[in-house]
Amino acid sequence: MSIRSFTEKTLAAEVFGRMKRTPDARLKQVMGSFIRHLHAFVREVRPTPEELDRGIRFLTEIGHWCDDKRQEYVLLSDTTGVTMLVDFINHGKLGNATESTVLGPFFVEGAPEMPMGADIAQPGTPGAPCMVTGSVADMKGRPVAGARMDVWEAQGDGFYDVQKPGGLNVRARFRTGADGKYRFRCVKPVSYPLPHDGPVGKLLEATGRHPMRPGHLHFKIAAPGCETLVTHLFAKGDRYLDSDAVFGVKPSLVVDFRRRRGGEYAAHFDFVLKPARKTALRRKR
Amino acid sequence: MSIRSFTEKTLAAEVFGRMKRTPDARLKQVMGSFIRHLHAFVREVRPTPEELDRGIRFLTEIGHWCDDKRQEYVLLSDTTGVTMLVDFINHGKLGNATESTVLGPFFVEGAPEMPMGADIAQPGTPGAPCMVTGSVADMKGRPVAGARMDVWEAQGDGFYDVQKPGGLNVRARFRTGADGKYRFRCVKPVSYPLPHDGPVGKLLEATGRHPMRPGHLHFKIAAPGCETLVTHLFAKGDRYLDSDAVFGVKPSLVVDFRRRRGGEYAAHFDFVLKPARKTALRRKR
Repeated sequence: MSIRSFTEKTLAAEVFGRMKRTPDARLKQVMGSFIRHLHAFVREVRPTPEELDRGIRFLTEIGHWCDDKRQEYVLLSDTTGVTMLVDFINHGKLGNATESTVLGPFFVEGAPEMPMGADIAQPGTPGAPCMVTGSVADMKGRPVAGARMDVWEAQGDGFYDVQKPGGLNVRARFRTGADGKYRFRCVKPVSYPLPHDGPVGKLLEATGRHPMRPGHLHFKIAAPGCETLVTHLFAKGDRYLDSDAVFGVKPSLVVDFRRRRGGEYAAHFDFVLKPARKTALRRKR
Repeated sequence: MSIRSFTEKTLAAEVFGRMKRTPDARLKQVMGSFIRHLHAFVREVRPTPEELDRGIRFLTEIGHWCDDKRQEYVLLSDTTGVTMLVDFINHGKLGNATESTVLGPFFVEGAPEMPMGADIAQPGTPGAPCMVTGSVADMKGRPVAGARMDVWEAQGDGFYDVQKPGGLNVRARFRTGADGKYRFRCVKPVSYPLPHDGPVGKLLEATGRHPMRPGHLHFKIAAPGCETLVTHLFAKGDRYLDSDAVFGVKPSLVVDFRRRRGGEYAAHFDFVLKPARKTALRRKR
């Protein structure tokens, strides 16, 4: 009986060879690529056993920070650019269509429906009052009626409703009418730090990075016949626009939140939705 | 103010560019390599947002399985070959020196010291009785006196002492005398499954792999002037020698556990220790 022996160069092929009977073709493809890149990384950095142990403890600690309120692995994905990379892969730039960005961890399914013109910030919400207006259209410029528009944002103190007591706030769902227009009041977006008291925050600090995101207003817009759009409007002039901790800023999404007489801010943006796609485009490069 | 924009090809460089002020040079090197390989993996497999989410949930679940008794991330490292890769990187083959393999998760610091010839299995331990003999020498063939030899293994039912109630068992520390010889009784090693009721076990199953390790006896041998050796002796003829779930088998570590008259098994192995090294060899390729 001859026993196979491996070297650091041949081990990855051996590991993947063991998976050749994987019934799910996609899983087989993903694991093959994962093993190849993982081994290439390890061969390149040549960790000591103590460094491997430290890496394992880091991944374990990230897992231990995750619960139903906090997703530290999403933070790792966001701050390593992986979340935006998956956005680029799945939602490429197409003509005049509005660009997408990260969903973020604070979306809530089932926000209260409100009529156009409503103020989504309850009285007493920290932050400067702000009016946002615009329209939803398709790529041919036709208004999209019946679009379901979810809007949410951090309050003026930098926290989302779900990060503090008091129930849902500065979060609503609107539905466009025949003209495709929308209009609501909220608070002017402010920059704020990602939760950075955990292992991902420590990694940011150890690598000389700040945890800040530039001020932004979240949108998720779904309409029949259109591809669902997940995006932000970023506040022009924010000091973190060029160093968003999650790499989410696209220049086309930066909007002037202008101060008007009376102290209220106002912003305007016209969304353009892509047509719904029948087949996954992401496989194409 | 001009806002930078990225593409899926330029994003990795942007992420690493943000880390250029990392004070710790080694961390900077590791993170640079990590980001490059992570992005290359994601660009290659082109995950959907749902697949990214599934990956994040998988990593989170592995973290949640980790506690002071179970280290599921070590299992992931072991079963993806990373642990053995780090072994190859740090402990290359050198002349006639005994080869190393994984430490495994069941080493316990502070096992009971026993005199040569002792039976490390308490009466009633499942398994076939076995005598193991041999010597510890340096690469010039000189006996190593005062070597501290830790020995441990699974019992005949496939479980280590720490996986079940009843305290330490089949685990001991010996110290060599002037002749460098060792001799003890234990139980014949049997093949057994890694803990496979968690997410790593599910991944093994989904990729058509079994969780079995071939039967083996663990050794950790430390002596003044020598590099500490962590290794196994594997039982010749075991059906899993060529498919060890952690890729730990090296042909030179396979030993005949021969059945003798009276039913006891016997194995013999002479260990050869490398000299202690003054500088880390692992950086060399």
